[in-house]
Amino acid sequence: MSFELLAEEGGARRGRLHTAHGVIDTPAFMPVGTQASVKALTPEEVRELGAQVLLANTYHLALRPGAERIARLGGLHRFMGWDGAILTDSGGFQVFSLDHLVKVGDQGATFRSHLDGSEQVFTPESVMAIQRDLGSDIAMVFDQPVSWPAPAEMARTAMERTHSWAARCLAAEAVPGQLRFGIVQGGFDEDLRRESAEVLGQQPFDGFGVGGLSLGEPKSLTYRLLSLQTAILPRDRPRYLMGVGTPGDLVEAIARGIDMFDCVLPTRIARNGSILTRGGRINLRNRQFIEDAGPLDGGCDCYTCQRFSRAYLRHLFMAGEILGHRLASIHNLRLLVRLVAEVREKIGTGGLGQAMTSLRDEWALAPLP
Amino acid sequence: MSFELLAEEGGARRGRLHTAHGVIDTPAFMPVGTQASVKALTPEEVRELGAQVLLANTYHLALRPGAERIARLGGLHRFMGWDGAILTDSGGFQVFSLDHLVKVGDQGATFRSHLDGSEQVFTPESVMAIQRDLGSDIAMVFDQPVSWPAPAEMARTAMERTHSWAARCLAAEAVPGQLRFGIVQGGFDEDLRRESAEVLGQQPFDGFGVGGLSLGEPKSLTYRLLSLQTAILPRDRPRYLMGVGTPGDLVEAIARGIDMFDCVLPTRIARNGSILTRGGRINLRNRQFIEDAGPLDGGCDCYTCQRFSRAYLRHLFMAGEILGHRLASIHNLRLLVRLVAEVREKIGTGGLGQAMTSLRDEWALAPLP
Repeated sequence: MSFELLAEEGGARRGRLHTAHGVIDTPAFMPVGTQASVKALTPEEVRELGAQVLLANTYHLALRPGAERIARLGGLHRFMGWDGAILTDSGGFQVFSLDHLVKVGDQGATFRSHLDGSEQVFTPESVMAIQRDLGSDIAMVFDQPVSWPAPAEMARTAMERTHSWAARCLAAEAVPGQLRFGIVQGGFDEDLRRESAEVLGQQPFDGFGVGGLSLGEPKSLTYRLLSLQTAILPRDRPRYLMGVGTPGDLVEAIARGIDMFDCVLPTRIARNGSILTRGGRINLRNRQFIEDAGPLDGGCDCYTCQRFSRAYLRHLFMAGEILGHRLASIHNLRLLVRLVAEVREKIGTGGLGQAMTSLRDEWALAPLP
Repeated sequence: MSFELLAEEGGARRGRLHTAHGVIDTPAFMPVGTQASVKALTPEEVRELGAQVLLANTYHLALRPGAERIARLGGLHRFMGWDGAILTDSGGFQVFSLDHLVKVGDQGATFRSHLDGSEQVFTPESVMAIQRDLGSDIAMVFDQPVSWPAPAEMARTAMERTHSWAARCLAAEAVPGQLRFGIVQGGFDEDLRRESAEVLGQQPFDGFGVGGLSLGEPKSLTYRLLSLQTAILPRDRPRYLMGVGTPGDLVEAIARGIDMFDCVLPTRIARNGSILTRGGRINLRNRQFIEDAGPLDGGCDCYTCQRFSRAYLRHLFMAGEILGHRLASIHNLRLLVRLVAEVREKIGTGGLGQAMTSLRDEWALAPLP
């Protein structure tokens, strides 16, 4: 088994996932490098953040520069200069969420490229072939999420198709050293969510993504559906909550048995000068920071907080200097990686409950649903 | 004296300029950090390029975030986290070249801020006060360049005003540890250029900028006017050719007695994927690089060339990833800093002539005018 479950406390789990490019200590936050670049950062900077794994995107890389091209250039690790682990998203979310004509059938999905309008076809088999060419350490199966508020009937159709596609992904020739994760779906219906976790949990996947959540539904529903599925999914394999989330989401999802996360939030909000701090989110464009000589977050150990003031960062944003985006991204990512690491270290010590309470206070989280 | 002249060969000079923030080995190329940021780079990266001094801009920083504010935050070095030397341009070039209503009189210049349209007044005294607040190591006097092709009459008026302003800058209270450079002007007229070098060369400046060149006039004229002025300027003080230039310009200007350079070219063209290489300039957007696994320049020792392929850089530019801008800037800047350093090491060895010939071949430079 690639996954070692080291400790459990409350519903949370501490573990270790072995990949062809190193160990991932879980729970883990994965910075997002959609187009083979964690926005504005070098691989060394991503490593310095404490990240052991990053996410890249099958959909984007297949369209540009092309998976076969990346294979000819030595694979994704070499292409982007990252020697840690890489998880590749399957493209299911992009195919069904980007604004392009998509036709879905049992065979796969036909859609128009958002780059040049060309017709593209993704099938479970082609998506696995793309991920083989990329040479990622963890490949995700091709799935069909539904958007909120999808009626249960539509969610059932998409879920059953996702299950059938998952079986076809497993039937594709395995790539040596590449782990394969199934993706549970089920829309926003409790029965479907249970069913999806039961059906896929019986398949010999190396781990499981929980997909199709945090798409606009109330948080209380997100957490309830998540808890239903993690209670069913096999205990001996990692669970990855796809595309989530905020600091609060991370803490709450860990408490519900999630082991891995990715989210564009820290880099996306950084671009606008929005900064995660332990006192809440701040926006550097606010005039109150114009002569603030302090760091972004007094308790943060990131490069940005060690070297620069809020006043300087604010100046960079006001002046349109991209160094601002870069320094803010470093901080926001480090804050999430470190937050998850801090929770991880508590799991199994008996001190998790108290730590969670304190984090809930610190991050002003909503009470548990 | 702050300047040591260590060697001369042909018309070229090797020296050492002592500043409050370290030694500058000359000839030297100064990366441009107009708004207190060398675009996309951290101070550590600028240092790793081999730069000992960078340029920041009085005009831009006075308007935003304000020089007094930077003073309250501990000065420009602390504000931007750079512990090397800083030269601040006087703002003369910006005041007279940016597209904003400017009224000039003997007292100074009145213009509208390009940021908010507010009326601003720059005088020789106010410009020196701004540079005192910034705490730069080298302050430039306030000057009035003229654009090509300015008639001699107009150039004379501006030159005489520049001389009178230079005297007023010198009369302003000296800032301990801050060097003051005059700026020679004279438009595109040989007699005026000679006169300006003679008049200002008699003043007790710590060095001299050669301003108002490379503004659209033929290269042969640039070099002729430059040679006229360096032949007159005092041998024991450094000369800085402002806003120039290309690799070829650097080599030719060193041969004409120039000691310091700044230019936005390497970072500006980097933004568009344009790369300086010893085989000429290339544009990464060109399809020929789509699977080019080689570095930007095979002989380059920069971070980018050590770590990434042309194919990856091209992908970053095609995908709009700002890491591309950043990696290209590192390369282009390192190439110029290293080019100047290579020439510097030859000066006084007896091998300069041969090195210059080889550089002229390598960079496909025009024959000497």
